[in-house]
Amino acid sequence: MSESTSRPSVTVLGLGPMGRALAAAFLDAGVRTTVWNRTPGRDGELVARGAVAAASPEEAVAAAPLTVVCVVNYDASDAVLRRAAVTTALKGRTVVNLSADTPGRARDTADWAARHGVRYLDGAIMTPTPTIGTADAVFLHSGPADLYEEHRPVLAALGGTHTHLGEDAGRAAAYDIALLDIFWTAMAGYTHALALARAEGVTGAELAPFAHGIAAILPPLFTEFAADADAGTYSGELNPVTSAVSTMAHVVHASEAHGIDASVMRVVEGQARRVIALGHGTDGYTRVAELIARR
Amino acid sequence: MSESTSRPSVTVLGLGPMGRALAAAFLDAGVRTTVWNRTPGRDGELVARGAVAAASPEEAVAAAPLTVVCVVNYDASDAVLRRAAVTTALKGRTVVNLSADTPGRARDTADWAARHGVRYLDGAIMTPTPTIGTADAVFLHSGPADLYEEHRPVLAALGGTHTHLGEDAGRAAAYDIALLDIFWTAMAGYTHALALARAEGVTGAELAPFAHGIAAILPPLFTEFAADADAGTYSGELNPVTSAVSTMAHVVHASEAHGIDASVMRVVEGQARRVIALGHGTDGYTRVAELIARR
Ligand SMILES: NC(=O)c1ccc[n+]([C@@H]2O[C@H](COP(=O)([O-])OP(=O)(O)OC[C@H]3O[C@@H](n4cnc5c(N)ncnc54)[C@H](OP(=O)(O)O)[C@@H]3O)[C@@H](O)[C@H]2O)c1
Ligand SMILES: NC(=O)c1ccc[n+]([C@@H]2O[C@H](COP(=O)([O-])OP(=O)(O)OC[C@H]3O[C@@H](n4cnc5c(N)ncnc54)[C@H](OP(=O)(O)O)[C@@H]3O)[C@@H](O)[C@H]2O)c1
Repeated sequence: MSESTSRPSVTVLGLGPMGRALAAAFLDAGVRTTVWNRTPGRDGELVARGAVAAASPEEAVAAAPLTVVCVVNYDASDAVLRRAAVTTALKGRTVVNLSADTPGRARDTADWAARHGVRYLDGAIMTPTPTIGTADAVFLHSGPADLYEEHRPVLAALGGTHTHLGEDAGRAAAYDIALLDIFWTAMAGYTHALALARAEGVTGAELAPFAHGIAAILPPLFTEFAADADAGTYSGELNPVTSAVSTMAHVVHASEAHGIDASVMRVVEGQARRVIALGHGTDGYTRVAELIARR
Repeated sequence: MSESTSRPSVTVLGLGPMGRALAAAFLDAGVRTTVWNRTPGRDGELVARGAVAAASPEEAVAAAPLTVVCVVNYDASDAVLRRAAVTTALKGRTVVNLSADTPGRARDTADWAARHGVRYLDGAIMTPTPTIGTADAVFLHSGPADLYEEHRPVLAALGGTHTHLGEDAGRAAAYDIALLDIFWTAMAGYTHALALARAEGVTGAELAPFAHGIAAILPPLFTEFAADADAGTYSGELNPVTSAVSTMAHVVHASEAHGIDASVMRVVEGQARRVIALGHGTDGYTRVAELIARR
């Protein structure tokens, strides 16, 4: 497996749903792609499409100047990368770690890489697998800007928008956890809403178009509440937390009347009531940001 | 205050942020608008724009064939409507109750209206006050279809999309609570994300554009997960709950490391872990819909 070819080449470690999507996008873009996964047998379709299957992670990383890692978390990426043979093979090469974890783990991995002569970029993927290779994909990166610029052309094969957030290796993960916080909390609300709607005789198919409407009202509110949080002023002029808490209580009440667990909304409602109890009832709901961060 | 004019007329009871927005939209559309609010002094701007201020709710409802009620909840709308003088004045007229509450309270109010010869439509408003009178407003209605058709032209002054969901008075509220469930849970996630991002040195202004990206990925997932819920099959092929739970744990861990309360995500993570413990780790996260509804 020689690197001395004009075709760009990349290695992908980790062939879960996302790793497979990344490898497929590289192949589609004509990038010479070597793949490896801890559990064998995940590379069949990729090999059929031209990927090179490596027998070990050290063989895989030796096959290209750039290795993209996409496993479940940094315990997993450590288990792959921090083996002597792999670390040795990576010396002088670049790793882009697109696995999700905390900013602290990202910085720790950057430190490990620096100690071992491994060039390191951290990153995060903010969109689902079907977006990979399309204009809708969103990637965040952090680490040395020159290293990012060097590998940008190959990473562009993944499609979508790539943003370099700064030299601090933890920066992509900082955005990632905040955005995953929004994503999974919203998904919890939607999943709960599906259960509640069903109990009320409303199907998912009936609810979904209106749920799209809720997604549509979020962006301007996100912008408004971000400004509130940055300024530390949480205006309730358009929607006071006293009004919000009333509708939260309806969700709890209606859910529990149907025997549906409402513990997520109970916590949300409780925090909003605490804001009111602290004398901020005419403020907007997002004053909760101050409450939960109080030490 | 005579009704015998060719100009359509309406009464608005409740002049909180939303009631004022509704009254302003009616005025903008040239509808003769009478207003009343429990606490005096909320009608100044509306009167300056041509609204008629009523001295009492009974005087207010007598001024138009259609009364729109928009107060905090149905305890409040009961406090206004279920007074002898008001109920008497409403006989033969129509009430559209756009206050938010549970489906049960909506049905109960429809029963009360039927017993008192009041024509009754229930409704819900799914968008924030700045959308009222614009194409972006979303209104849900339920109750007698002919009554809805009769008042549709006046309600159209509020702008946006109006959907009649059926004859059952509780239907609009059923959609409303499910959609508010999504909305407030998502807002809780966003508010938490603002606090977490700030602790990581990321401002709201920096986070918001990427948060818009999260809002953008929700609609296709909403459609997909609605189909899952309707079919009772929760495929984790693209994103298994084992992967989801790992990122949820990062949010909890990073938050608590900064002294930020992560109790909402702790509940969300706990429910996802329960799905895995029940043997559904390769399913998608939305299988939680089955877990929380289990009696
Ligand atoms: N799927 C999505 O929609 C999506 C979206 C954005 C970001 N992401 C992120 O992308 C990353 C990968 O996600 P995914 O969807 O592909 O599925 P995943 O379930 O998060 O990760 C599966 C991959 O991790 C590997 N792995 C787990 N533990 C390991 C260990 N100890 N040593 C070596 N490899 C290990 C698995 O190998 P085995 O096959 O051997 O178990 C498999 O390759 C995650 O961090 C996820 O948060 C995913
Ligand atoms: N604001 C929004 O963005 C929005 C969006 C969608 C739906 N909604 C819904 O619209 C409705 C009204 O909301 P809002 O934003 O205008 O503010 P709100 O704070 O929910 O409601 C304030 C209104 O309720 C009245 N009220 C409260 N208790 C009362 C009682 N016991 N008797 C009589 N009136 C009483 C208030 O009168 P006083 O002035 O006398 O206190 C005021 O007119 C709510 O159901 C809300 O969920 C609001």
